[in-house]
Amino acid sequence: MDSVWYDGDAVGFLDQRALPRAVVRERATTTAAIVDAIRTLAVRGAPAIGIFGAYGVALAAQQHRDDRAALEDAAAQIRRARPTAVNLAWAVDRVLATPGGELAEAQRIHEEQRDVDHRIAEASIALFPSNGNVLTHCNTGPIATGGDGTALGCFVAAHRAGKSLHVFVDETRPLLQGARLTMFELREAGVPCTLIVDSAAAITMQRKDVRAIVVGADRIARNGDTANKIGTYGVAIGAAHHGIPFYVAAPRSTFDFALESGAEIPIEERSGEEVRIADGDPVYNPAFDVTPGRLVTGFITEYGVLSPPYAESIADLEHRPRLPLPVA
Amino acid sequence: MDSVWYDGDAVGFLDQRALPRAVVRERATTTAAIVDAIRTLAVRGAPAIGIFGAYGVALAAQQHRDDRAALEDAAAQIRRARPTAVNLAWAVDRVLATPGGELAEAQRIHEEQRDVDHRIAEASIALFPSNGNVLTHCNTGPIATGGDGTALGCFVAAHRAGKSLHVFVDETRPLLQGARLTMFELREAGVPCTLIVDSAAAITMQRKDVRAIVVGADRIARNGDTANKIGTYGVAIGAAHHGIPFYVAAPRSTFDFALESGAEIPIEERSGEEVRIADGDPVYNPAFDVTPGRLVTGFITEYGVLSPPYAESIADLEHRPRLPLPVA
Repeated sequence: MDSVWYDGDAVGFLDQRALPRAVVRERATTTAAIVDAIRTLAVRGAPAIGIFGAYGVALAAQQHRDDRAALEDAAAQIRRARPTAVNLAWAVDRVLATPGGELAEAQRIHEEQRDVDHRIAEASIALFPSNGNVLTHCNTGPIATGGDGTALGCFVAAHRAGKSLHVFVDETRPLLQGARLTMFELREAGVPCTLIVDSAAAITMQRKDVRAIVVGADRIARNGDTANKIGTYGVAIGAAHHGIPFYVAAPRSTFDFALESGAEIPIEERSGEEVRIADGDPVYNPAFDVTPGRLVTGFITEYGVLSPPYAESIADLEHRPRLPLPVA
Repeated sequence: MDSVWYDGDAVGFLDQRALPRAVVRERATTTAAIVDAIRTLAVRGAPAIGIFGAYGVALAAQQHRDDRAALEDAAAQIRRARPTAVNLAWAVDRVLATPGGELAEAQRIHEEQRDVDHRIAEASIALFPSNGNVLTHCNTGPIATGGDGTALGCFVAAHRAGKSLHVFVDETRPLLQGARLTMFELREAGVPCTLIVDSAAAITMQRKDVRAIVVGADRIARNGDTANKIGTYGVAIGAAHHGIPFYVAAPRSTFDFALESGAEIPIEERSGEEVRIADGDPVYNPAFDVTPGRLVTGFITEYGVLSPPYAESIADLEHRPRLPLPVA
C-alpha cells in the first residue's frame, strides 16, 4: 500500500487519519494542500513526509516553471509545515537544488528510501533472538516511510527470516498511530502482535520477558539524542530500568549533523484539542520527546548498526559515501 | 459531591462513567446491581469501592434478615467483584462481622474514611515545596474515596495551606480517569492543573521541573510493593530516573499485611474492548501494575509518612491502634 506517489499534476497520498476503518486516497494539487496534509497528519512518518514534501516541490516546480521566487516560496512553506523531523527539510532542499530535474530528484529520494529501508531491515535481523517478545512505539511501517518501514520493517524482516517474534504495540496517544496503523501493518504482514495502552509498556517489560525494543526517529543529533513520537523517552527509561536493549531504526537522512545535542531540536506542541475532554482544560501536548543518546543501545541504519560512543560512530556516518541504488 | 451513600432501601451512587459531561445519580437495590456497578466502574476508587461494598452488605443484611447463608453469599459476591484493591474485601468482612449492626458499621467505615483522608492530606503538606510543579496519575479525589481524596486531597490541602502547586495530570488510559475526573475535581477545588497524555509524563519530568509525584494505591504489601492503576509503575521508574520524590498516599486499610510482596497481588485483566480499534486485534489490558517498594520515597498515611525500610515501618503500621474519630 503506497502512502505517497506522484500523479502527473498532483501528489497522491493515503489519508492516514482514516485507517484502519477506510482506505482513502487523496490528491494534493497546490502547495497549500501539501502543507495541510502534513500539518493535519493525513501524511505522517518522518520519511514519508520527506518524500511527500519532495514531490510537493516537484509539483510547485512544474506549476512555477519560470518563476524561481515562487518555487522557493512554495518550498519554504513546505519545509516549515512541521518542525521536528529533519527529513522534510533535507528532502525539500535536495529537490530545490536540482533546477529542471525536480521530479527526477524526488523520485530518486523515494527510490532511495525503499532501498534504505530494505538495508535497515536486513541489518537488524542479527539483533533479535530466534524467538521472543519485542515492543515498539508509534508507527514506522510502509505507510510511514514509503518503503518497507524502519522499526516495523525490522520486525517483518526478522519474521520472514524465520524468527518467531511477538510484537507488543503501544497504542500511541493521542493520535493512536500504534493502534490504528502498526497493528494493521503487522497483521497484514503476518507478524503476531498485541496491542497495549502506552502506560502498560512498563508492566509488559517487567512481566512479558521483552527481549528488544525498536522505535523510529524524527531527528537524531551528533551525540545520539533522538527526537521521536511523544512517549519514546519513557519507553527508553523503562528499557534501561529492565536491562532491555533499546534500538532506534533510522536512515542517514534522519541524522542532523548540524546539531551537537537534542537540546537544539525544536519540539512541536500540538493543539490541546487532541487530548482534552472537558472544555477549557489546560493541556500540554508535545508531539515528540528527546531520548538521550546514552539510553540508546544502537542505531540501525542502512550502513549497519551504530554503537556507542556516538560522537565517533555518528561522525563516521556523516562521511559515508552515498550508497549506490541496486540494479533493478 | 458524594460518590456513595445509603438510601434507606438502596445504595446510592454517582455514576462515574458519565462525568464530566453529566452528573448521574443511581440507586442499587440488589446485590447484583452492587456487583455490576463495581465491575463496570460506575463506582471506582479503592476506598469508594470499600464504602460502597460495605453499604451493599448492609443492604443485603436488611433484605435477608433471618437468612445468614443468603447474607454471606451476597457478601461473597460483592467481595469478589474486583480482585486487586484490598479495601473491598476488608470492608465487606468488617461489616459481615457485626451481625445486627451492619448499617452502623458501614456508616462508621464511611465516617472513618473522611477522617483518614483529612489526616493523610494534613500529613502531606510538609512534603511539598512552597511552589512548583507536581504530577499525579489516575483519580484519587473525593469521588474515588468518599472523603477528601488521597493523593488529590494532598494537593488540595497544600493549596489551601498557601502553597502554589501546579498539578500535571496523566489522562490515564484506557478509561481516562485523569482527564475526566481528576481535572474536574482539581478545577472545582481551584488548584491549577494541566492535562497530559500518559506517555508525556517523562518529558514533563525532564522539562517542567516536577518537584514531587503523588499517587494513590489499591493494595500495598509488607515490603512496600504497591498495586495501583496501570501506568503507575512507569511513572515511578521515570521519577527514579529524574531523582523526583515519588509518594503513595493511602489509608492503612489499603495495606494488606498478609502479603509479603507484590508478587502475590492478583492483577485484574480487563476486556480488550477498552483499548482496541480494529475488530479482532489481540489486546493485553491489565488494569493495574505493581510498583516495587524500592521506588517509593514514602507512604503518606493517616498515621503520618512511612519511610524505608518498609519491612519495619509497615510492620509498625500493622500494630497501630485504631484512631479515634474526632468529636463532631
